[in-house]
Amino acid sequence: MSTKPPSGTRDFLPADVRRREHVIGVVRRVYERYGFEPLETPAFENIETLIGKYGEEGNKLIFKILKRGEHEASGEADLALRYDLTVPLARVVAQYQNELPKFFKRYQIQPVWRADRPAKGRFREFYQCDIDSIGSTSPMVEAEQLSAVTEVLTTLGFRDFTIQLNHRVLLTAMLEAANVPAGLHGEALVAIDKLDKIGRDGVRKELVGRGVTDESASACLDAFEDVPAFERLVQASDKGGPAKSEVDRILSLALGTPAAGHVSFVPRLARGLSYYTGAIMEITVPDLAGSLGGGGRYDNLVGMFLGRDVPACGFSLGLERIIVVMTERGMFPDSIAGGGVDVMVTVWNDDSRSDALALAGELRRGGLRVDVYPEADKLGKQFKYASSRSVPFVAIVGDDERANGTVSVKDLRSGAQETMPRGDVAAFIAAGANREP
Amino acid sequence: MSTKPPSGTRDFLPADVRRREHVIGVVRRVYERYGFEPLETPAFENIETLIGKYGEEGNKLIFKILKRGEHEASGEADLALRYDLTVPLARVVAQYQNELPKFFKRYQIQPVWRADRPAKGRFREFYQCDIDSIGSTSPMVEAEQLSAVTEVLTTLGFRDFTIQLNHRVLLTAMLEAANVPAGLHGEALVAIDKLDKIGRDGVRKELVGRGVTDESASACLDAFEDVPAFERLVQASDKGGPAKSEVDRILSLALGTPAAGHVSFVPRLARGLSYYTGAIMEITVPDLAGSLGGGGRYDNLVGMFLGRDVPACGFSLGLERIIVVMTERGMFPDSIAGGGVDVMVTVWNDDSRSDALALAGELRRGGLRVDVYPEADKLGKQFKYASSRSVPFVAIVGDDERANGTVSVKDLRSGAQETMPRGDVAAFIAAGANREP
Repeated sequence: MSTKPPSGTRDFLPADVRRREHVIGVVRRVYERYGFEPLETPAFENIETLIGKYGEEGNKLIFKILKRGEHEASGEADLALRYDLTVPLARVVAQYQNELPKFFKRYQIQPVWRADRPAKGRFREFYQCDIDSIGSTSPMVEAEQLSAVTEVLTTLGFRDFTIQLNHRVLLTAMLEAANVPAGLHGEALVAIDKLDKIGRDGVRKELVGRGVTDESASACLDAFEDVPAFERLVQASDKGGPAKSEVDRILSLALGTPAAGHVSFVPRLARGLSYYTGAIMEITVPDLAGSLGGGGRYDNLVGMFLGRDVPACGFSLGLERIIVVMTERGMFPDSIAGGGVDVMVTVWNDDSRSDALALAGELRRGGLRVDVYPEADKLGKQFKYASSRSVPFVAIVGDDERANGTVSVKDLRSGAQETMPRGDVAAFIAAGANREP
Repeated sequence: MSTKPPSGTRDFLPADVRRREHVIGVVRRVYERYGFEPLETPAFENIETLIGKYGEEGNKLIFKILKRGEHEASGEADLALRYDLTVPLARVVAQYQNELPKFFKRYQIQPVWRADRPAKGRFREFYQCDIDSIGSTSPMVEAEQLSAVTEVLTTLGFRDFTIQLNHRVLLTAMLEAANVPAGLHGEALVAIDKLDKIGRDGVRKELVGRGVTDESASACLDAFEDVPAFERLVQASDKGGPAKSEVDRILSLALGTPAAGHVSFVPRLARGLSYYTGAIMEITVPDLAGSLGGGGRYDNLVGMFLGRDVPACGFSLGLERIIVVMTERGMFPDSIAGGGVDVMVTVWNDDSRSDALALAGELRRGGLRVDVYPEADKLGKQFKYASSRSVPFVAIVGDDERANGTVSVKDLRSGAQETMPRGDVAAFIAAGANREP
């Protein structure tokens, strides 16, 4: 029987969990400071909650759970694994509408499951880190989100990211001005979204292939080359002017936040998802194809279970991609890169086991992460074991030390050994270990 | 369409998540200090990994996931949701045997799913918090685990819990001495496990119903009344003596740890699960039927995928039960019971929105959790909104304040309002808000 995790999923061994928890901890702390509140929903939903919400392709990628008991043999499914964090949010907004604040700002950091064909960097179980602000159409919402995601990334140590900002209505106005028929707008946006990936000629070919005239395709592509040309084009439309003002308001508010210097207006940003209705945003770094995260305003979706529009704007950070880039760049702090134990207490002989536990207790009260070797093996074997686990220090209480109330502490990285009063050990190790402050 | 979460599952709104994260945070910190390292496994396993591992009854309670794509119509399942954290651990121990340390101490805090009939306090999605120590048969392992779970509970504020300790081999020896046939030992232990629940007469009836003679049942029940009688009975057997010595060694080691005063030898403790092979442990509090957690030594299970025995001892804490008791007793700190925001910055008018964001940024840099009201509503409406969210403070920068470089801060709990230099606001609020230190 295979002992590998299922296809497309991963086991996270201690060093992996530490890296993930470091990133999640930063995300959570920053979002908390921005007044976002945590939400968690079940891993599965009733199947009718999810089916039909993600298009034809999405329906196929949903993991479906077999009915149980006597119905199991029917082969029918009644539950399905969470596919994103937005549909569950919409359900929560409908279910608890009288309990939630008028402006509900929530963050949610949970795994989702998609039956995609597994590939490098594409998993069937992966985490999403979403913020969504429900209930207001104010540009303050977008500005706060731009500021919050910026602080997440700078706190993690990123300096060189850019945030592209655009507006779905601007794109619509541009497509109208370029005489692309309304029925082709959706497909045209999907093609335009690939501009960075497949280039001008690739997009032109795709647009024409989808039925856009050569002239219209050229008008679109020219507009993306030149911001003033784009603005002139969209200002001609009824909707274009107000949408551009909204972008300007968001930008001007964002300039007074940490997002300044990162965010800029990028007319060609389209974002693939069909549900955006206003501002759209995307974060990129030079050394990653694709984005570290993105979002936008989608005023029609969160109200789906309420039967009315509810203003909403959200931003989703890609945890797996952030971890990939941080790992490749060596951005994790030493305290994370090291092991999970600051000191291992050795066991001198069977009679000293109680004393080893007592010393471990004292060091733990000093805030250290302490392991105790479980058996009275040869000291050399115990040292070797500690080294293999990247434990920086071992503590030894032999017969002499016990008689004198001292402890010998060996730094396994340098080999230096020092004997000191028992009460000094915790501070000595705390000063020398690689630990989160 | 229903917007409730699926039967047996729960949505966790912000206050719920905060309570859960508080408990999980303590569990994680204490276990880290004891040298346990974090492990996470996928939400689902290949179905053959789980089927047959939890008995007939367990097989029925496993959530099974339909094959995808063209195989979906077959009604067959190839994946199943995690049912406990022990079988995944056994798989991980087999898969990464060359990477894991000889003594692998891991903690794992993740949800599991069981298709039990939902009832009060019984859920289909619930968290398990497990520690397991793999690779050593030393009583140091049990002593460390007793100490660690004690520290988890005392850190959470529990004082009145007791930890019962017994040994499976002692129970076997006792059953042998009482002439219970070996073939009935398993069933007898299940009956004995209910002694606290159904009483002496109930257990006697159940034992006799399962084929134990009246005389044997009496011998067992008498032994549980009286520790010395129990010890005399088991010392008569070959296995009883060494098992009792092991219990004594564990107890004597535990007496030098924080577990002292909580742990005691309780002959009638049986624990339902069949896989224990040595020490067994269980935590109870007076105001909860059932236990807050339990565990024991199970030297035959973790090696199931390796094809050889691997020494193992584990302890599982019941997160949901801990939260129930802490909620009923009001044990959560004020910082958790309150809302998630320390101060809300009000918006004076559209022109002051940038300044509101700037002030929010300053207060966040001071470590505060800050919300900004998104719209330029009437101040009274903004105050009311902040109150409804239990935000203790609002910050107001009106025209006067802006001219003077000051901020007015209103304490919504007392109604007191004070105007102060802008640079003093963060410290003033930090001193007055209910926050985790």
